[in-house]
Amino acid sequence: MDSPVYLSVMKKMVYTPGPSQLYFTAEEHLKQALRDNIPAISHRSRAFQSLFQEATESIRNLLEIPEDFSIYFTGSATEIWDRLIENCVTHESCHLVNGAFSKRFGEQARALGRETHVWEVPVGTAHPIEQMLMPESCELIALTHNETSTGVSMQMEDFSKIRAAFPDQLIAIDAVSSLPYPQFDWSTLDSTYFSVQKGFGLPAGLGVWVANERCHEKAQERRDAGYSIGSYHNLFSLREKAQKNQTPETPNVLGIYLLTKVAQDMLGKGMDMIRRETNYKAAFLYGCFERWNGFQPFVSEPEHRSKTVIVVETVQPSAEWVQKLSDKGFVVGQGYGSLKDHQLRIANFPTHSKESVELLADTIEALL
Amino acid sequence: MDSPVYLSVMKKMVYTPGPSQLYFTAEEHLKQALRDNIPAISHRSRAFQSLFQEATESIRNLLEIPEDFSIYFTGSATEIWDRLIENCVTHESCHLVNGAFSKRFGEQARALGRETHVWEVPVGTAHPIEQMLMPESCELIALTHNETSTGVSMQMEDFSKIRAAFPDQLIAIDAVSSLPYPQFDWSTLDSTYFSVQKGFGLPAGLGVWVANERCHEKAQERRDAGYSIGSYHNLFSLREKAQKNQTPETPNVLGIYLLTKVAQDMLGKGMDMIRRETNYKAAFLYGCFERWNGFQPFVSEPEHRSKTVIVVETVQPSAEWVQKLSDKGFVVGQGYGSLKDHQLRIANFPTHSKESVELLADTIEALL
Repeated sequence: MDSPVYLSVMKKMVYTPGPSQLYFTAEEHLKQALRDNIPAISHRSRAFQSLFQEATESIRNLLEIPEDFSIYFTGSATEIWDRLIENCVTHESCHLVNGAFSKRFGEQARALGRETHVWEVPVGTAHPIEQMLMPESCELIALTHNETSTGVSMQMEDFSKIRAAFPDQLIAIDAVSSLPYPQFDWSTLDSTYFSVQKGFGLPAGLGVWVANERCHEKAQERRDAGYSIGSYHNLFSLREKAQKNQTPETPNVLGIYLLTKVAQDMLGKGMDMIRRETNYKAAFLYGCFERWNGFQPFVSEPEHRSKTVIVVETVQPSAEWVQKLSDKGFVVGQGYGSLKDHQLRIANFPTHSKESVELLADTIEALL
Repeated sequence: MDSPVYLSVMKKMVYTPGPSQLYFTAEEHLKQALRDNIPAISHRSRAFQSLFQEATESIRNLLEIPEDFSIYFTGSATEIWDRLIENCVTHESCHLVNGAFSKRFGEQARALGRETHVWEVPVGTAHPIEQMLMPESCELIALTHNETSTGVSMQMEDFSKIRAAFPDQLIAIDAVSSLPYPQFDWSTLDSTYFSVQKGFGLPAGLGVWVANERCHEKAQERRDAGYSIGSYHNLFSLREKAQKNQTPETPNVLGIYLLTKVAQDMLGKGMDMIRRETNYKAAFLYGCFERWNGFQPFVSEPEHRSKTVIVVETVQPSAEWVQKLSDKGFVVGQGYGSLKDHQLRIANFPTHSKESVELLADTIEALL
């Protein structure tokens, strides 16, 4: 290999919160895909239609997605922010902001010419939902289940409360760095979305957009009123092709294949088990960081601490910890943006086994 | 493997015009990427910045792209149609249409609310450029170097003539199914783009957009006038990140890695050699199909026959030929859309060796 800089993550266990360590079965699936020449199948062939059907069925089963939600593929979750606005918002969207990614969705909406109502709370804190105010004119409420930049997580009851208080608005939940972990009550939301390089442990380059009939109705209403809802990735182009088990453009076929296989592996293991393990590993890590001198969980309210992205404050510069852990074979992330220098972010995804999380903790403890 | 439908392309040489056979070195690069844990590297890490730089330099060297053109990554070439319109067209675009893909670009422009001027000629024919008329109010001229649906190719002198006649318009050339083969005179165009699953022989899920300063100036002008130029993938978001060797969203990191490696392999082989081989294989195949009873090249003017997507009419139903060749280990494409039943489309990409093309021809001849 002539590019030594790549060596930085070779033979190490990667705990950055996305891209992260590949799911432990992904490499074998990739090799099987090569043996089966998956990258060469035409996206207009029966082979692809069969794969598309298998993919959407597996995702639907895994996440228990009701039938009135459709499943679409995009290039990234960032793209889905655009598509949600283009399809579902004519004038105004509402954004609950508590970190860099929830903020960026609002910025994209404004770049697309929409007025945004932003309710921002200090980073590291959750929104006190009981105090939520919003103009009735808002068409879509953008929520972030798990703010990847800060490790703040919303609770399922937050979604129920918002749904009850604002029944006329569309509710879109960013679950980029939490799915497949959360078990949503699908009646509390109209759309959710994720990208595959986080909880699913797959190579980046594929977003998954789940949207119900109300989203489609809103898009229809907008189109009927003469507004542009975008082109190849508007909800109707996506639906028309999805009904034939196809995509409008040539998609990331290999990514869809790998997602299918990993979703099936997770189904085989069982989401109950994956959720229990996630809970155990999160509780274990937070417990360690609360006990150890020199660390402290960033999110002070335990019920809002993310189960999938563990964020801790460090007394020592975080870069030193990143380096020390890298030397021991563990790649962890620094804090995001302005929080970089005194925070660590540690992914707790399904691919991170109990044993390796315990080993990571032992390694940190030995370095204290 | 529990999905026998995938077997359709196993152990066969794939000649569909995209997705097509992987470049012959791609599989080894993919395995190396796994060994180096490329899918796990963060898109905000130095490792990725190094890869991004290597990628754009390799593409620039391979295609001899001048410095005043920038190179950006998207999810697909279909996405680039949207981005060209969003960034570079306020009111009107002009589309030279001679097949399904050139037509679709115009449709996307209309879906985005632009007025389009479409000059459509019968499928299988090229535009008589001397007769080109266009309102001066058009802001962008959309050309298709190689219409994948019909195998009609424009000539380099066509681009020079259009540039000379319409110096004030932006000229965007779709080179999706021809690059890296064509050697563009970059002074005749403002933007070109391709996707990696065709001539580059890579897994689908990555588009490459090349755009010069004039495109950026137009976007600036539009933004200054208060028009939306899109969000994360507008030219300024792309440029801001590219200057840091990054992308706005989490990109298809593995795809960028593979493209880099294959571009370097092609550089090592030399584009002169690749072009000579492409010319030889194309001349050989067209010669065979002209000689054989039961076949005829679809494009009657030899100078407009694509070198990279060979389209022939068949007397026998094309599905029969697809089946017979599949039984012998060759996957070829049927005609596109309404041309499906009596046409074959055969990719002639850099990965298709002279030997395998000759073997394909021998196989067809033996079946006659």
